[in-house]
Amino acid sequence: MYKSYTKLNYMAKHLTTREADYSKWYNELVVKADLAQNSGVRGSMVIKPYGFAIWERIQADLDRRFKETGHMNAYFPLFIPKSYFSKEASHVDGFAKECAVVTHYRLMDDPNGGGVVVDPSAKLEEELIVRPTSETIIWDTYKDWIQSYRDLPILVNQWANVVRWEMRTRLFLRTAEFLWQEGHTAHATKEEAITEAETMLNVYTDFVQDVMAIPVLRGLKTEGERFAGALETYCIEALMQDGKALQAGTSHFLGQNFAKAFEVKFQNKEGKQEYVWATSWGVSTRLMGALIMTHSDDNGLVLPPKLAPYQVVIVPIYKGQEQLDAISEVAEDLMGQLRAQGITVKYDNRDTHKPGWKFNQYELQGIPLRIAIGPKDLEKGSVELARRDTLTKEFVDQKEVSTKIPELLDEIQHTLFQKALDFREAHSQEANSWEEFEALMKGNPGFVYAHWDGTTETENKIKELTKATIRCIPLDAKEEDGVCVLTGKPSKQRVVFAKAY
Amino acid sequence: MYKSYTKLNYMAKHLTTREADYSKWYNELVVKADLAQNSGVRGSMVIKPYGFAIWERIQADLDRRFKETGHMNAYFPLFIPKSYFSKEASHVDGFAKECAVVTHYRLMDDPNGGGVVVDPSAKLEEELIVRPTSETIIWDTYKDWIQSYRDLPILVNQWANVVRWEMRTRLFLRTAEFLWQEGHTAHATKEEAITEAETMLNVYTDFVQDVMAIPVLRGLKTEGERFAGALETYCIEALMQDGKALQAGTSHFLGQNFAKAFEVKFQNKEGKQEYVWATSWGVSTRLMGALIMTHSDDNGLVLPPKLAPYQVVIVPIYKGQEQLDAISEVAEDLMGQLRAQGITVKYDNRDTHKPGWKFNQYELQGIPLRIAIGPKDLEKGSVELARRDTLTKEFVDQKEVSTKIPELLDEIQHTLFQKALDFREAHSQEANSWEEFEALMKGNPGFVYAHWDGTTETENKIKELTKATIRCIPLDAKEEDGVCVLTGKPSKQRVVFAKAY
Repeated sequence: MYKSYTKLNYMAKHLTTREADYSKWYNELVVKADLAQNSGVRGSMVIKPYGFAIWERIQADLDRRFKETGHMNAYFPLFIPKSYFSKEASHVDGFAKECAVVTHYRLMDDPNGGGVVVDPSAKLEEELIVRPTSETIIWDTYKDWIQSYRDLPILVNQWANVVRWEMRTRLFLRTAEFLWQEGHTAHATKEEAITEAETMLNVYTDFVQDVMAIPVLRGLKTEGERFAGALETYCIEALMQDGKALQAGTSHFLGQNFAKAFEVKFQNKEGKQEYVWATSWGVSTRLMGALIMTHSDDNGLVLPPKLAPYQVVIVPIYKGQEQLDAISEVAEDLMGQLRAQGITVKYDNRDTHKPGWKFNQYELQGIPLRIAIGPKDLEKGSVELARRDTLTKEFVDQKEVSTKIPELLDEIQHTLFQKALDFREAHSQEANSWEEFEALMKGNPGFVYAHWDGTTETENKIKELTKATIRCIPLDAKEEDGVCVLTGKPSKQRVVFAKAY
Repeated sequence: MYKSYTKLNYMAKHLTTREADYSKWYNELVVKADLAQNSGVRGSMVIKPYGFAIWERIQADLDRRFKETGHMNAYFPLFIPKSYFSKEASHVDGFAKECAVVTHYRLMDDPNGGGVVVDPSAKLEEELIVRPTSETIIWDTYKDWIQSYRDLPILVNQWANVVRWEMRTRLFLRTAEFLWQEGHTAHATKEEAITEAETMLNVYTDFVQDVMAIPVLRGLKTEGERFAGALETYCIEALMQDGKALQAGTSHFLGQNFAKAFEVKFQNKEGKQEYVWATSWGVSTRLMGALIMTHSDDNGLVLPPKLAPYQVVIVPIYKGQEQLDAISEVAEDLMGQLRAQGITVKYDNRDTHKPGWKFNQYELQGIPLRIAIGPKDLEKGSVELARRDTLTKEFVDQKEVSTKIPELLDEIQHTLFQKALDFREAHSQEANSWEEFEALMKGNPGFVYAHWDGTTETENKIKELTKATIRCIPLDAKEEDGVCVLTGKPSKQRVVFAKAY
């Protein structure tokens, strides 16, 4: 085997660079890589087939993990009667305010001839809210499912669309409608519910790190950042390339709040009535935003092999049918060898597009490995193998392709995680005074570990002064005596601050 | 191996019989078998974990077939601006009238202290319709995707929830919100679009017959029964045990209607601008209703093995831990052998429920095969094997279980289809005069083949007089001269009438 690593020398893309305008780079990449686009409906996106294929891989892997931990899927109504929200006081404040409200159930022809208009006689007695999250409708249902300790635990997940009326939206990161999964579990004891919330945080952590190749911090939210209705919110936090944090998943210990709001009791083994303990946990299409912003570069998307809809693409470079036939024979043979190992391969022999266009497109779309086969490769028994993450290419003997590629895919998966971890380590620091803290927060410094006095008041004040929020109280933080960066009051451990998406 | 077929002699269930009240039997079965239940939201159901597990099997199998025929999934917005519906005239009549309308995007605290109320200042400029079907929003998007013949065909499917404001709802059969898939394809030529619509009808036919074990008639809808906006609607029609028909899936050739409404043109190979040709096709959670009503009996659900969340359940019958341990050893061994063959098995060793309760529950839930292992079986090296579809049981040597079960599962799958086909054949007949026709339609006779003069007027008149509708014009009907049962006008082939869900 002979090697000839060279930087790829074609540069098409036409993406704004990250340095020039990070936000513009992101938006252009999402559209040009065929991941998503804005729709004609304010704040709602269209997830395009290629983007959805990545989301399907996320879904499939998570779904398997949920089932392995004993959960089953179910489906609950999209609409929630307005009165349900009023039953859990903090929940209505957190969710029911900015929401889509269904008030009517019929349109009619405009008597003035202006198309169709709402039929005023078809007004609902009680307005319906398009679910922003499903705790209320689900706990209203669990009331029917739970009588005895024999009915517990209930371990249910739902894959669904939800709507939160956001005024400033961004593809994947913040949209009025988004896709997610929401787990909702019911338990006989507090301890069991806390264990469940922690188990699901671990499921998320393993998935995001091992499959998405994104390192995360694991921690607890402060009281001010907790889910509306939760006693404790566990979270995983990732760091994006622009130095801003992104919350990648949350798992909530809800105590007995929803059981009390919806009167869900069970008879325990001793025959006594008790309120049920609850958790809920979710990740959303926001993960797509985290994926894009962790690994991608100025040439487009970079995908970890475990999430790539195609791990390898083969592009023939030919003149005339005869050459194409000869190349196709080699390509078919390679595909067979790779597919037998469970590797997904696409052979793009379309004659409607030129090889250069295809190279550019697959680079934009982040296909981990690209094989090009031309007439010279036929002579030499080689192929040109290009690696998306490093943008290097080499010639590989056709006989070695099927052993080399699985090794390379593993290496890329590992490299992407390590690179992101190195980036995070390089962008994690301590701040020991307000001057230090304030100076750091003039930019997007990454994760800043600082002491905090534990009050929501101080947290809010810091946010007001610097736009930084407490991302989490890390689960593995060591005890350390210190003083709050703002108030100088005593603190027992550092918390993690950052500017956040 | 020794056999001892006997009718199972416990009869718990507490289901109303089909003969006593078919509709009540259906509703009770759906709830008691843990498939679905009504929710606190009018017309919206909760799909329970067990019911959803069956739906997931339907989804997975269909999704594989869609991908094998070249389709990719995508996701489009839940909300559709009202004005989009007005762009395709017949579509607005068919769908936009009975629908959920979002008019506001915020709630606020009631100034009079009555919980939360709609904030009148948060009124949308244009109302949003919760999608009843997505042709309009999708063709508004395709406008961006299609410029040239190179961009065609577009073969996209969406798994989604949709809402149609039904006044009389029934679990799975007719609900305000339901789950479905909707394929939406775009083509350069009329012929290609028609081929696509037919291909998807075939995909549905194969799936419903081979996996759901439900025989279907394939045909075309009459003009009066066509999808709003379609030039031709292909359908598959199944016959339920009460002699009523159920439409199990439709595939529409939409012509250029939506392309014209949304101005979607492409440049053909000759450089000319042409409107794009379209199809759409869908099946929904209604298939769950078809499944239940085709195979089930007075003891509960009967599932074809290919759709059963568990194909086999093993129930230990024991006194004390020692017996349970010995039985569990046998059970674990059998499970290993069955799982190695890709058979799904559940071992229900819960000590919170008695064997009789479990037998009853799994019978209600339609698990195809049940294995019971008791102390005598340990002595004799046997198990008791019960078959859900025939309600027979036999003793089987433990050594023969792993070869016998896959054979039995195949046999059950086949038997269920054949039984349903026999039922349909026994409930298909011809009517050659109005007297015959009217007499038959006093009940629910099944499929009635009769001549019809081809006009919507006659079709409507027949419906008014008998409540029977034309289910389809069969694709494989032979030409046959005759006269319309109602008007006596000439007809070239019989069409299929029935009372329908």
